[in-house]
Amino acid sequence: MARKKKGLLLVVSGPAGVGKGTVNAALMAKHPEIRMSVSATTRAPRPGEIDGVHYFFKTKDEFDRMIEENAFLEYMHVFGMNYYGTPKAFVEAEREKGNHVILEIDVQGAMKVKAACPDAVMVFIAPPSLKILKERLVGRGTETQESIDVRTKTALDELKMLPNYDYMVVNDVVDEAVAEMESILTAELCRTGRNTEPISKLTGGETI
Amino acid sequence: MARKKKGLLLVVSGPAGVGKGTVNAALMAKHPEIRMSVSATTRAPRPGEIDGVHYFFKTKDEFDRMIEENAFLEYMHVFGMNYYGTPKAFVEAEREKGNHVILEIDVQGAMKVKAACPDAVMVFIAPPSLKILKERLVGRGTETQESIDVRTKTALDELKMLPNYDYMVVNDVVDEAVAEMESILTAELCRTGRNTEPISKLTGGETI
Repeated sequence: MARKKKGLLLVVSGPAGVGKGTVNAALMAKHPEIRMSVSATTRAPRPGEIDGVHYFFKTKDEFDRMIEENAFLEYMHVFGMNYYGTPKAFVEAEREKGNHVILEIDVQGAMKVKAACPDAVMVFIAPPSLKILKERLVGRGTETQESIDVRTKTALDELKMLPNYDYMVVNDVVDEAVAEMESILTAELCRTGRNTEPISKLTGGETI
Repeated sequence: MARKKKGLLLVVSGPAGVGKGTVNAALMAKHPEIRMSVSATTRAPRPGEIDGVHYFFKTKDEFDRMIEENAFLEYMHVFGMNYYGTPKAFVEAEREKGNHVILEIDVQGAMKVKAACPDAVMVFIAPPSLKILKERLVGRGTETQESIDVRTKTALDELKMLPNYDYMVVNDVVDEAVAEMESILTAELCRTGRNTEPISKLTGGETI
Protein backbone atom coordinates (compact mmCIF):
# COMPACT_ATOMS: atom_id res chain seq x y z
CA MET A 1 0.00 0.00 0.00
CA ALA A 2 1.84 3.09 -1.24
CA ARG A 3 1.03 6.09 0.88
CA LYS A 4 2.02 9.08 -1.21
CA LYS A 5 2.94 11.73 1.29
CA LYS A 6 4.11 15.30 1.18
CA GLY A 7 7.87 15.43 1.63
CA LEU A 8 9.51 17.04 4.63
CA LEU A 9 11.46 20.27 4.97
CA LEU A 10 14.52 19.49 7.05
CA VAL A 11 16.17 22.62 8.42
CA VAL A 12 19.75 21.77 9.39
CA SER A 13 21.96 24.04 11.47
CA GLY A 14 25.17 23.50 13.36
CA PRO A 15 28.47 25.21 14.07
CA ALA A 16 31.18 25.61 11.44
CA GLY A 17 33.39 22.54 11.42
CA VAL A 18 30.72 20.18 12.80
CA GLY A 19 30.41 18.33 9.51
CA LYS A 20 26.92 19.38 8.35
CA GLY A 21 27.96 19.18 4.72
CA THR A 22 29.48 15.71 5.12
CA VAL A 23 26.42 14.34 6.92
CA ASN A 24 23.97 15.86 4.42
CA ALA A 25 25.98 14.67 1.41
CA ALA A 26 26.11 11.12 2.81
CA LEU A 27 22.38 11.24 3.51
CA MET A 28 21.58 12.45 0.00
CA ALA A 29 23.86 9.84 -1.58
CA LYS A 30 21.67 7.15 0.02
CA HIS A 31 18.35 8.85 -0.70
CA PRO A 32 17.70 10.19 -4.19
CA GLU A 33 14.36 11.54 -2.93
CA ILE A 34 16.21 14.18 -0.89
CA ARG A 35 17.01 17.54 -2.48
CA MET A 36 19.15 20.41 -1.27
CA SER A 37 17.30 23.72 -1.21
CA VAL A 38 18.50 26.17 -3.87
CA SER A 39 19.01 29.75 -2.68
CA ALA A 40 18.32 32.93 -4.61
CA THR A 41 21.00 35.63 -4.72
CA THR A 42 21.72 38.97 -6.36
CA ARG A 43 25.42 38.23 -6.72
CA ALA A 44 26.79 37.45 -10.18
CA PRO A 45 27.26 33.81 -11.18
CA ARG A 46 30.82 32.51 -10.95
CA PRO A 47 32.27 30.51 -13.84
CA GLY A 48 30.52 27.16 -14.05
CA GLU A 49 27.59 28.10 -11.80
CA ILE A 50 24.22 27.18 -13.31
CA ASP A 51 21.03 29.15 -12.65
CA GLY A 52 18.52 26.98 -10.79
CA VAL A 53 21.18 24.46 -9.78
CA HIS A 54 23.77 26.32 -7.71
CA TYR A 55 21.61 29.40 -7.17
CA PHE A 56 18.65 31.20 -8.64
CA PHE A 57 20.40 34.32 -9.93
CA LYS A 58 18.21 37.41 -9.60
CA THR A 59 18.52 41.13 -10.21
CA LYS A 60 17.92 43.43 -7.26
CA ASP A 61 14.55 44.42 -8.74
CA GLU A 62 13.53 40.79 -9.13
CA PHE A 63 14.64 40.02 -5.58
CA ASP A 64 12.74 43.03 -4.20
CA ARG A 65 9.62 41.93 -6.06
CA MET A 66 9.93 38.44 -4.57
CA ILE A 67 10.20 39.97 -1.10
CA GLU A 68 7.01 41.97 -1.74
CA GLU A 69 5.27 38.85 -2.99
CA ASN A 70 6.25 36.99 0.19
CA ALA A 71 8.05 34.47 -2.01
CA PHE A 72 10.82 33.69 0.51
CA LEU A 73 10.90 31.38 3.49
CA GLU A 74 13.66 33.69 4.72
CA TYR A 75 16.07 36.17 3.18
CA MET A 76 18.99 38.23 4.34
CA HIS A 77 20.21 41.57 3.19
CA VAL A 78 23.07 43.46 4.77
CA PHE A 79 23.15 47.04 3.48
CA GLY A 80 25.50 47.40 0.52
CA MET A 81 25.89 43.60 0.22
CA ASN A 82 24.21 41.04 -1.99
CA TYR A 83 20.84 39.55 -1.08
CA TYR A 84 20.44 35.86 -0.25
CA GLY A 85 17.15 34.08 0.29
CA THR A 86 15.30 30.76 0.26
CA PRO A 87 12.53 30.76 -2.36
CA LYS A 88 9.35 29.05 -1.17
CA ALA A 89 8.40 27.84 -4.64
CA PHE A 90 11.28 25.37 -5.05
CA VAL A 91 10.82 23.89 -1.59
CA GLU A 92 7.05 23.54 -2.00
CA ALA A 93 7.26 22.03 -5.49
CA GLU A 94 9.70 19.35 -4.34
CA ARG A 95 7.68 18.57 -1.21
CA GLU A 96 4.51 18.23 -3.25
CA LYS A 97 6.30 15.63 -5.38
CA GLY A 98 7.00 13.69 -2.17
CA ASN A 99 10.69 14.67 -2.08
CA HIS A 100 12.34 15.87 1.11
CA VAL A 101 14.23 19.16 1.05
CA ILE A 102 17.28 19.92 3.19
CA LEU A 103 17.94 23.54 4.01
CA GLU A 104 21.36 24.13 5.57
CA ILE A 105 21.16 27.47 7.34
CA ASP A 106 22.48 29.41 10.32
CA VAL A 107 20.46 29.65 13.53
CA GLN A 108 19.00 33.09 12.80
CA GLY A 109 17.79 32.02 9.36
CA ALA A 110 16.47 28.77 10.80
CA MET A 111 14.23 30.63 13.23
CA LYS A 112 12.76 32.68 10.36
CA VAL A 113 12.06 29.47 8.41
CA LYS A 114 10.39 27.87 11.40
CA ALA A 115 8.10 30.92 11.72
CA ALA A 116 7.26 30.83 8.00
CA CYS A 117 6.90 27.05 7.83
CA PRO A 118 5.77 25.60 11.18
CA ASP A 119 5.84 22.00 9.91
CA ALA A 120 9.58 22.22 9.15
CA VAL A 121 11.67 19.62 10.98
CA MET A 122 14.40 21.48 12.88
CA VAL A 123 17.66 19.55 13.28
CA PHE A 124 20.75 20.82 15.06
CA ILE A 125 23.98 18.97 14.32
CA ALA A 126 26.22 19.21 17.35
CA PRO A 127 29.82 18.21 17.94
CA PRO A 128 30.54 15.60 20.63
CA SER A 129 32.16 18.46 22.56
CA LEU A 130 33.48 21.97 21.94
CA LYS A 131 36.97 20.60 22.47
CA ILE A 132 36.52 18.18 19.55
CA LEU A 133 35.02 20.96 17.40
CA LYS A 134 38.15 23.05 18.04
CA GLU A 135 40.36 20.12 17.11
CA ARG A 136 38.45 19.64 13.85
CA LEU A 137 38.85 23.32 12.96
CA VAL A 138 42.58 23.10 13.72
CA GLY A 139 42.76 19.89 11.67
CA ARG A 140 41.45 21.69 8.59
CA GLY A 141 44.77 23.53 8.52
CA THR A 142 43.09 26.49 6.80
CA GLU A 143 41.96 28.48 9.81
CA THR A 144 44.00 31.07 11.71
CA GLN A 145 44.07 30.89 15.50
CA GLU A 146 41.88 34.00 15.59
CA SER A 147 39.37 32.45 13.19
CA ILE A 148 39.27 29.29 15.32
CA ASP A 149 38.63 31.35 18.47
CA VAL A 150 35.82 33.29 16.76
CA ARG A 151 34.22 30.12 15.39
CA THR A 152 34.38 28.35 18.76
CA LYS A 153 32.82 31.36 20.48
CA THR A 154 30.09 31.46 17.79
CA ALA A 155 29.51 27.71 18.23
CA LEU A 156 28.76 28.27 21.91
CA ASP A 157 26.22 30.98 21.04
CA GLU A 158 24.63 28.66 18.47
CA LEU A 159 24.41 25.81 20.96
CA LYS A 160 22.32 28.05 23.19
CA MET A 161 19.65 27.98 20.46
CA LEU A 162 19.32 24.19 20.74
CA PRO A 163 16.00 24.27 22.64
CA ASN A 164 14.46 25.92 19.55
CA TYR A 165 15.24 22.81 17.49
CA ASP A 166 13.26 19.56 17.43
CA TYR A 167 16.25 17.23 17.25
CA MET A 168 19.92 17.16 18.14
CA VAL A 169 22.14 14.86 16.11
CA VAL A 170 25.65 14.50 17.53
CA ASN A 171 28.14 14.08 14.71
CA ASP A 172 30.69 11.79 16.30
CA VAL A 173 30.69 9.00 13.70
CA VAL A 174 29.27 10.19 10.35
CA ASP A 175 27.42 6.92 9.56
CA GLU A 176 25.66 7.05 12.93
CA ALA A 177 24.68 10.68 12.40
CA VAL A 178 23.29 9.76 8.96
CA ALA A 179 21.34 6.84 10.45
CA GLU A 180 19.84 9.21 13.02
CA MET A 181 18.83 11.64 10.28
CA GLU A 182 17.18 8.75 8.40
CA SER A 183 15.29 7.74 11.54
CA ILE A 184 14.14 11.31 12.05
CA LEU A 185 12.74 11.41 8.50
CA THR A 186 10.96 8.06 8.92
CA ALA A 187 9.57 8.96 12.35
CA GLU A 188 8.37 12.39 11.21
CA LEU A 189 6.43 10.78 8.35
CA CYS A 190 4.66 8.65 11.00
CA ARG A 191 3.63 11.66 13.09
CA THR A 192 -0.15 11.79 13.44
CA GLY A 193 -0.03 15.55 12.80
CA ARG A 194 1.23 14.79 9.28
CA ASN A 195 -1.44 12.15 8.70
CA THR A 196 -4.57 14.18 8.36
CA GLU A 197 -7.82 12.48 7.44
CA PRO A 198 -6.46 9.07 8.41
CA ILE A 199 -9.84 7.83 9.60
CA SER A 200 -11.62 8.49 6.34
CA LYS A 201 -8.67 7.00 4.46
CA LEU A 202 -8.63 3.92 6.67
CA THR A 203 -12.34 3.33 6.58
CA GLY A 204 -12.52 4.17 2.90
CA GLY A 205 -15.84 5.78 3.72
CA GLU A 206 -17.37 2.37 4.29
CA THR A 207 -20.27 1.95 6.67
CA ILE A 208 -19.88 -0.72 9.27
CA MET B 1 31.23 8.39 22.83
CA ALA B 2 28.58 6.54 24.83
CA ARG B 3 25.71 8.80 25.77
CA LYS B 4 23.88 6.99 28.55
CA LYS B 5 20.31 8.10 28.27
CA LYS B 6 17.09 7.44 30.09
CA GLY B 7 15.05 4.84 28.22
CA LEU B 8 11.71 5.63 26.63
CA LEU B 9 8.20 4.62 27.60
CA LEU B 10 6.46 3.53 24.42
CA VAL B 11 2.69 3.39 24.82
CA VAL B 12 1.26 1.21 22.05
CA SER B 13 -2.43 1.00 21.21
CA GLY B 14 -4.34 -0.28 18.25
CA PRO B 15 -7.48 -2.23 17.42
CA ALA B 16 -7.83 -5.94 18.09
CA GLY B 17 -6.48 -7.89 15.13
CA VAL B 18 -4.10 -5.17 13.97
CA GLY B 19 -1.04 -7.18 14.98
CA LYS B 20 0.27 -5.14 17.95
CA GLY B 21 1.61 -8.28 19.61
CA THR B 22 3.37 -9.46 16.46
CA VAL B 23 5.02 -6.09 15.85
CA ASN B 24 6.10 -5.67 19.47
CA ALA B 25 7.45 -9.22 19.71
CA ALA B 26 9.49 -8.73 16.52
CA LEU B 27 10.78 -5.41 17.83
CA MET B 28 11.80 -6.93 21.16
CA ALA B 29 13.47 -9.90 19.47
CA LYS B 30 15.82 -7.43 17.72
CA HIS B 31 16.35 -5.21 20.75
CA PRO B 32 17.20 -6.82 24.08
CA GLU B 33 17.12 -3.34 25.66
CA ILE B 34 13.33 -3.24 25.23
CA ARG B 35 11.11 -4.59 27.99
CA MET B 36 7.40 -5.25 28.12
CA SER B 37 5.67 -3.51 31.01
CA VAL B 38 4.46 -5.94 33.71
CA SER B 39 0.94 -5.29 35.02
CA ALA B 40 -0.31 -5.72 38.55
CA THR B 41 -3.54 -7.63 39.14
CA THR B 42 -5.67 -8.97 41.96
CA ARG B 43 -6.61 -12.08 40.05
CA ALA B 44 -5.10 -15.40 41.09
CA PRO B 45 -2.06 -16.70 39.19
CA ARG B 46 -2.79 -19.38 36.61
CA PRO B 47 -0.61 -22.49 36.50
CA GLY B 48 2.85 -21.53 35.28
CA GLU B 49 2.45 -17.79 35.81
CA ILE B 50 5.36 -16.23 37.68
CA ASP B 51 5.02 -13.20 39.95
CA GLY B 52 6.98 -10.27 38.55
CA VAL B 53 7.22 -11.87 35.10
CA HIS B 54 3.69 -12.40 33.83
CA TYR B 55 2.05 -10.16 36.43
CA PHE B 56 2.70 -8.67 39.83
CA PHE B 57 0.09 -10.59 41.82
CA LYS B 58 -1.42 -8.45 44.57
CA THR B 59 -4.15 -8.80 47.18
CA LYS B 60 -6.96 -6.26 47.09
CA ASP B 61 -5.51 -4.55 50.15
CA GLU B 62 -2.09 -4.30 48.54
CA PHE B 63 -3.62 -2.96 45.34
CA ASP B 64 -5.69 -0.38 47.27
CA ARG B 65 -2.58 0.75 49.13
CA MET B 66 -0.72 1.18 45.83
CA ILE B 67 -3.60 3.30 44.53
CA GLU B 68 -3.39 5.49 47.64
CA GLU B 69 0.38 5.79 47.20
CA ASN B 70 -0.08 6.91 43.58
CA ALA B 71 2.01 3.94 42.54
CA PHE B 72 0.20 3.34 39.23
CA LEU B 73 0.59 4.99 35.86
CA GLU B 74 -2.99 3.84 35.33
CA TYR B 75 -5.29 1.22 36.79
CA MET B 76 -8.73 -0.09 36.05
CA HIS B 77 -11.35 -1.49 38.32
CA VAL B 78 -14.79 -2.53 37.28
CA PHE B 79 -17.00 -3.14 40.34
CA GLY B 80 -16.99 -6.80 41.32
CA MET B 81 -14.13 -7.61 38.96
CA ASN B 82 -10.37 -7.92 39.44
CA TYR B 83 -8.12 -4.87 39.43
CA TYR B 84 -5.49 -4.34 36.76
CA GLY B 85 -2.88 -1.62 36.75
CA THR B 86 0.53 -0.49 35.50
CA PRO B 87 2.98 -0.01 38.38
CA LYS B 88 5.20 3.05 37.98
CA ALA B 89 8.15 1.46 39.80
CA PHE B 90 8.90 -1.22 37.19
CA VAL B 91 8.68 1.22 34.29
CA GLU B 92 10.85 3.82 36.01
CA ALA B 93 13.49 1.31 37.14
CA GLU B 94 13.90 -0.02 33.60
CA ARG B 95 14.02 3.43 32.07
CA GLU B 96 16.65 4.55 34.56
CA LYS B 97 18.79 1.60 33.42
CA GLY B 98 18.49 2.95 29.86
CA ASN B 99 16.03 0.27 28.77
CA HIS B 100 12.90 1.12 26.81
CA VAL B 101 9.54 -0.10 28.08
CA ILE B 102 6.60 -1.01 25.86
CA LEU B 103 3.16 -0.69 27.36
CA GLU B 104 0.45 -2.28 25.22
CA ILE B 105 -2.81 -0.72 26.34
CA ASP B 106 -6.27 0.32 25.12
CA VAL B 107 -6.97 3.93 24.17
CA GLN B 108 -8.63 4.86 27.48
CA GLY B 109 -5.68 3.51 29.49
CA ALA B 110 -3.25 5.17 27.12
CA MET B 111 -4.75 8.59 27.79
CA LYS B 112 -4.33 8.06 31.55
CA VAL B 113 -0.68 7.08 31.04
CA LYS B 114 -0.05 10.15 28.91
CA ALA B 115 -1.48 12.35 31.67
CA ALA B 116 0.65 10.62 34.34
CA CYS B 117 3.79 10.48 32.18
CA PRO B 118 3.89 13.36 29.69
CA ASP B 119 7.18 12.21 28.15
CA ALA B 120 5.67 8.88 27.07
CA VAL B 121 5.87 8.23 23.33
CA MET B 122 2.35 7.49 22.10
CA VAL B 123 2.15 5.10 19.15
CA PHE B 124 -1.04 3.96 17.45
CA ILE B 125 -0.77 0.87 15.28
CA ALA B 126 -3.34 1.11 12.53
CA PRO B 127 -4.51 -1.37 9.92
CA PRO B 128 -4.03 -0.41 6.25
CA SER B 129 -7.84 -0.19 6.15
CA LEU B 130 -10.85 -1.31 8.17
CA LYS B 131 -11.62 -3.75 5.38
CA ILE B 132 -8.25 -5.46 5.87
CA LEU B 133 -8.72 -5.47 9.66
CA LYS B 134 -12.04 -7.28 9.20
CA GLU B 135 -10.39 -9.81 6.90
CA ARG B 136 -7.68 -10.45 9.49
CA LEU B 137 -10.27 -11.03 12.20
CA VAL B 138 -12.14 -13.42 9.93
CA GLY B 139 -8.83 -15.13 9.09
CA ARG B 140 -8.22 -15.93 12.74
CA GLY B 141 -11.10 -18.37 12.45
CA THR B 142 -11.85 -17.97 16.16
CA GLU B 143 -14.24 -15.02 16.08
CA THR B 144 -17.99 -15.16 15.63
CA GLN B 145 -19.60 -12.82 13.12
CA GLU B 146 -21.03 -10.86 16.04
CA SER B 147 -17.60 -10.57 17.67
CA ILE B 148 -16.10 -9.37 14.37
CA ASP B 149 -18.82 -6.73 14.02
CA VAL B 150 -18.24 -5.50 17.58
CA ARG B 151 -14.47 -5.41 17.13
CA THR B 152 -14.72 -3.52 13.84
CA LYS B 153 -17.08 -0.98 15.39
CA THR B 154 -14.70 -0.60 18.35
CA ALA B 155 -11.77 -0.17 15.94
CA LEU B 156 -13.51 2.79 14.35
CA ASP B 157 -14.02 4.39 17.76
CA GLU B 158 -10.36 3.79 18.60
CA LEU B 159 -9.20 5.32 15.32
CA LYS B 160 -10.98 8.51 16.31
CA MET B 161 -8.46 8.82 19.17
CA LEU B 162 -5.54 8.95 16.69
CA PRO B 163 -4.94 12.71 17.06
CA ASN B 164 -4.09 12.06 20.74
CA TYR B 165 -1.14 9.90 19.69
CA ASP B 166 2.28 11.12 18.54
CA TYR B 167 2.78 8.52 15.83
CA MET B 168 0.73 6.27 13.58
CA VAL B 169 2.41 3.08 12.37
CA VAL B 170 0.44 1.27 9.69
CA ASN B 171 0.90 -2.47 10.04
CA ASP B 172 0.77 -3.59 6.45
CA VAL B 173 4.10 -5.48 6.29
CA VAL B 174 5.35 -6.42 9.78
CA ASP B 175 9.04 -5.78 9.01
CA GLU B 176 8.22 -2.27 7.80
CA ALA B 177 6.14 -1.55 10.88
CA VAL B 178 9.02 -2.76 13.07
CA ALA B 179 11.48 -0.55 11.14
CA GLU B 180 9.20 2.43 11.73
CA MET B 181 9.04 1.65 15.45
CA GLU B 182 12.85 1.49 15.53
CA SER B 183 13.06 4.85 13.76
CA ILE B 184 10.63 6.35 16.24
CA LEU B 185 12.79 5.18 19.16
CA THR B 186 15.98 6.54 17.57
CA ALA B 187 14.39 9.85 16.62
CA GLU B 188 12.82 10.31 20.06
CA LEU B 189 16.23 9.86 21.70
CA CYS B 190 17.48 12.74 19.49
CA ARG B 191 14.69 15.09 20.57
CA THR B 192 16.16 18.21 22.14
CA GLY B 193 13.52 18.03 24.88
CA ARG B 194 15.11 14.76 26.03
CA ASN B 195 18.62 16.21 25.91
CA THR B 196 18.64 18.57 28.84
CA GLU B 197 21.87 20.29 29.80
CA PRO B 198 23.40 19.58 26.39
CA ILE B 199 25.35 22.82 26.40
CA SER B 200 27.14 22.15 29.66
CA LYS B 201 27.77 18.57 28.56
CA LEU B 202 29.12 19.70 25.20
CA THR B 203 31.32 22.44 26.55
CA GLY B 204 32.44 20.27 29.44
CA GLY B 205 32.39 23.46 31.48
CA GLU B 206 35.42 24.70 29.61
CA THR B 207 35.97 28.42 29.19
CA ILE B 208 36.60 29.54 25.65
